[in-house]
Amino acid sequence: MTLDEILKEIKNAQTIAILTHESPDGDAIGSSLALKLMIEELEKEAEVIIPEFPRTFQFLPGAEQVKIDTETKNYDLVISVDCATLKRLAKNEYFENAKKTIVIDHHGSNNMYGDLNYVNPASPACCEILVSMAEYFQIHMTKEIGTCIMTGMITDTGGFRYMGITPETFEYTADLLRIGVDIPDVYKRIMGTKTKANFELTKKVISRLEMLEDGKVAFSYINAQDEKEVNAEPGDHEGLVNIGKDIEGVLVSIFIRQKEEENAYKVSLRSEDGINVSDICLLFGGGGHSRAAGALIQGNVEEVKEKLMKEIKKWMES
Amino acid sequence: MTLDEILKEIKNAQTIAILTHESPDGDAIGSSLALKLMIEELEKEAEVIIPEFPRTFQFLPGAEQVKIDTETKNYDLVISVDCATLKRLAKNEYFENAKKTIVIDHHGSNNMYGDLNYVNPASPACCEILVSMAEYFQIHMTKEIGTCIMTGMITDTGGFRYMGITPETFEYTADLLRIGVDIPDVYKRIMGTKTKANFELTKKVISRLEMLEDGKVAFSYINAQDEKEVNAEPGDHEGLVNIGKDIEGVLVSIFIRQKEEENAYKVSLRSEDGINVSDICLLFGGGGHSRAAGALIQGNVEEVKEKLMKEIKKWMES
Repeated sequence: MTLDEILKEIKNAQTIAILTHESPDGDAIGSSLALKLMIEELEKEAEVIIPEFPRTFQFLPGAEQVKIDTETKNYDLVISVDCATLKRLAKNEYFENAKKTIVIDHHGSNNMYGDLNYVNPASPACCEILVSMAEYFQIHMTKEIGTCIMTGMITDTGGFRYMGITPETFEYTADLLRIGVDIPDVYKRIMGTKTKANFELTKKVISRLEMLEDGKVAFSYINAQDEKEVNAEPGDHEGLVNIGKDIEGVLVSIFIRQKEEENAYKVSLRSEDGINVSDICLLFGGGGHSRAAGALIQGNVEEVKEKLMKEIKKWMES
Repeated sequence: MTLDEILKEIKNAQTIAILTHESPDGDAIGSSLALKLMIEELEKEAEVIIPEFPRTFQFLPGAEQVKIDTETKNYDLVISVDCATLKRLAKNEYFENAKKTIVIDHHGSNNMYGDLNYVNPASPACCEILVSMAEYFQIHMTKEIGTCIMTGMITDTGGFRYMGITPETFEYTADLLRIGVDIPDVYKRIMGTKTKANFELTKKVISRLEMLEDGKVAFSYINAQDEKEVNAEPGDHEGLVNIGKDIEGVLVSIFIRQKEEENAYKVSLRSEDGINVSDICLLFGGGGHSRAAGALIQGNVEEVKEKLMKEIKKWMES
């Protein structure tokens, strides 16, 4: 079984690195740090290499040990967590130079780019896969590992709210609460706290929000200049994408955010049942999940909006 | 044990009514409807009497049978759920005229005003108490009862986020998900969906939000005229109170909402650890929980703000 082979590789490796996807979110960071701590419970060491680390997650155990780069370039083992493709993997040169590679992920679109691949698309969060791995490896679940795990589970279930959440999600959460993981604290840190910059951006997104197609599509945007004005840091745009989605009657919510000093926007689409926004984003070279996907589109606000609406309208008419 | 006596009273009564507190929220309504369905599983009938029923909860099983008043005035048994005092109980004349009364609640401030009182302040939601009652009474947990129960648990834990949430909350949730309760749907209906009116009110609250006392206090308001402008219905102000609370550094969040056609505001205070807003509201004749409390204060926006800030500042200095 793959898990036995994974355990064997971890035990055999002298040097191990953990990577995750670009613009890492709570599940990417939670999985990376949880796996590092799990490997330490197996009496091995691992480096977590993440070039961009949002301030929100700096409270997590092990966050201070995260590296942007390491002197070692050729690891015995490199493990990718929460990342569907080699292309999206930040610092993927480490992956390519590794003697052995493992992919642990929950994206349905994962293309199995590792020597060993442990991919479960039924899992709402990569961190949830790590809980089952920890059980299988008989790793003692500590409060520290649990705090990282909860960060991923809360992030990727939108705070226990998204479809696809499993009874196991709630049972693991109960177990982690029992061993002392401060779930309300984790929840508040990653979901419930708006930085002042985030609040100012929220205000802008709300004031600019347009309802299109009879209220079925919500659209809003943030320019690079807006982020400058409020001294936004990585992570300060968290949650902006959900503002339109939560309004009654909205089937597709579009949020676009200008790529710094470029005539291009990072597009985030969110949808309700039935509308596969991953398909729409694929048309623009992006991708994601069926209800949450992204792409990069050239143009100004109006041009990007027009390009997207053309495809969304086609979808709605079909 | 109280639960045995409660079961006996339910089985002995020919006529049963269920009441809850004024301005009922998801836990009040969820508890009322869940208890009605539980009583039906015991092969008895019960009327739920709630004078004001927010649209948000009209999807719940049994919602269409809720009465504003009934012809029967003297019930054999009246059960109050999720209500700390007789004064706050809507339609409390039914309670006063009942042959026998039962109080089921989770407020620490409950003053045990029933003949039988089953009050557990350790329970994050009144609905969670009903789950343990259903287990004790060996009532078959149906998807319908579970949907009502989840509504209360999600409401009163703020969507699984508040302190005081228990491992049991998550375990019960796992069980209810397993028997088919659509938890993401319930979550979205009661927490994740903003009506258009609610969105417009949110916009106003955000644009008016003031940060006081070096960002430790957030203040915002809604006038009766605002609600008229957006055709607000009961429930359309849900969530407005949390807008200020979620901003980094805020210890106390004040949201005030004008009482229709009166020079008075319904005050809602929310706080972080250590600041007991129930104590502050008590000074104005209100009350609640230590982190979430309310009162009614006479005056215009500036006057109400000043009265509150005077007390909050005292508390902060002490």
